[in-house]
Amino acid sequence: MVGTYRRAIPTRGQGDAHDLTDLVAAAVDESNCTGGLATVFVVGSTAAVTTIEFEPGAVADLNRLLETIAPREADYRHHLRWGDDNGSSHVRAALLGPSLTVPFANGKLILGTWQQIMLVELDTRPRKREIVVQVVGE
Amino acid sequence: MVGTYRRAIPTRGQGDAHDLTDLVAAAVDESNCTGGLATVFVVGSTAAVTTIEFEPGAVADLNRLLETIAPREADYRHHLRWGDDNGSSHVRAALLGPSLTVPFANGKLILGTWQQIMLVELDTRPRKREIVVQVVGE
Amino acid sequence: MVGTYRRAIPTRGQGDAHDLTDLVAAAVDESNCTGGLATVFVVGSTAAVTTIEFEPGAVADLNRLLETIAPREADYRHHLRWGDDNGSSHVRAALLGPSLTVPFANGKLILGTWQQIMLVELDTRPRKREIVVQVVGE
Repeated sequence: MVGTYRRAIPTRGQGDAHDLTDLVAAAVDESNCTGGLATVFVVGSTAAVTTIEFEPGAVADLNRLLETIAPREADYRHHLRWGDDNGSSHVRAALLGPSLTVPFANGKLILGTWQQIMLVELDTRPRKREIVVQVVGE
Repeated sequence: MVGTYRRAIPTRGQGDAHDLTDLVAAAVDESNCTGGLATVFVVGSTAAVTTIEFEPGAVADLNRLLETIAPREADYRHHLRWGDDNGSSHVRAALLGPSLTVPFANGKLILGTWQQIMLVELDTRPRKREIVVQVVGE
Repeated sequence: MVGTYRRAIPTRGQGDAHDLTDLVAAAVDESNCTGGLATVFVVGSTAAVTTIEFEPGAVADLNRLLETIAPREADYRHHLRWGDDNGSSHVRAALLGPSLTVPFANGKLILGTWQQIMLVELDTRPRKREIVVQVVGE
C-alpha cells in the first residue's frame, strides 16, 4: 500500500529548523500500515531533511558548520546567472540532500529517543515549504 | 510491484554532472505504477546522486565546495594502498551518498520546478556509470 | 512484503567503521524477496550510514575530512546544554545521514565490487548501535 501526505511548513530563512517527527508519525498512523518505509521529501532545491537531536545548540552547531564550508556571503557562480543571493543555499542543500527514509514497525517510526526528523531551511529568505511523506508498507 | 531499470551513463571525470530527471521519470512511467518510491542508485564508490537546480553555476559552486573540503591534489591514505589518485573521489562520494529516494504520485515524480535529480561523477577519470532506478509502488 | 531486521553492533568510538554489507545481504536473503528496496537505518543521532570502498585508507581519509570540517576539540553550543563533549558527533551525523536505501534484484543487493555499506560511529565514546534493515519488496 502507498499513501502520499503533503504538508506545508512556513519557514523564516536560512538556518530555520523544524522538527517534523510528529508530522511524519501522523502520516504513518493515517496510512494504517503497520510496517514499511516512510520517505520524507522536501520539494525544492534550497532546503534539506536529515535527523538530529533537535535542540537549539545542535542545530546552531550544524548551521555554523554549513556557514564555514559554504559561507553565505561568498561569491557563487549561481549568483551571476540569476542575480540571486542564495548560492550558499543550493550547495548546502545538495550536500545534505532533500530526502530521508525512515523504517517503521508496529505502526511506529523506528528512531532514537534523541533523534528527530528535521527540515532545515537553507534559502536566504522565508519560504513556504512543501513536505511530502510517502508511506509504502503493509 | 517492483521494477528495476538499469541505465549506463558515460562521464568525463571529476565534477561532470548529469541531469537524470527524465531518465527517472521514464522508469516510473514504464513501471505503470501510479504511486510509490523511486530510488536512484549509482553503482560504485566514486560517484554520487543528489538534487540541485541543474544549471552550470550551481553545479560549479558545488564542485568548488567539494574541492575546498576534499582537495583533489591533497595526500590521501587511499593513494598509498593502490597507487590510486582518487582519494578525493572516495571521500566526496561517501559524504554525498550514492542513493536518493524520490516519491511519485499520479505517475509523476514529486519535484520542485528548479529541482533536478543529478548524477555527479567524482572519480578523477572518465567512467561508464551504471544507474539503477528501483520503483516500488502500486 | 515488508521485513524488519534488527541487529546490534558494538562500536569503539569516533571514527570506528563497520562493513554492514553481509548483514544487509543476509536480511534480504531472509526476507525471501527477489526484488525491492533495503533501507539501512542507524538508530541514534551520533552515527551514520553510507557506502565506501571499505579499506582502512579510505575510511581514515573520510574521518580526516570530518575532523577538518567539524573538529572534535572545537567549541559546540551543544556542549553548553548537556555538558556533553560530542558536538562534533552530532553535526557529522546530521551531514552524513542515518539512512541509506539500496536496491536489490534476483535476491542480491546491487552494489559495485568496491562499494560496501558502512556504519561509521561518530560519538566520542563506545556505543552499542542498533541497525535496522527494512526490506520492502516482492
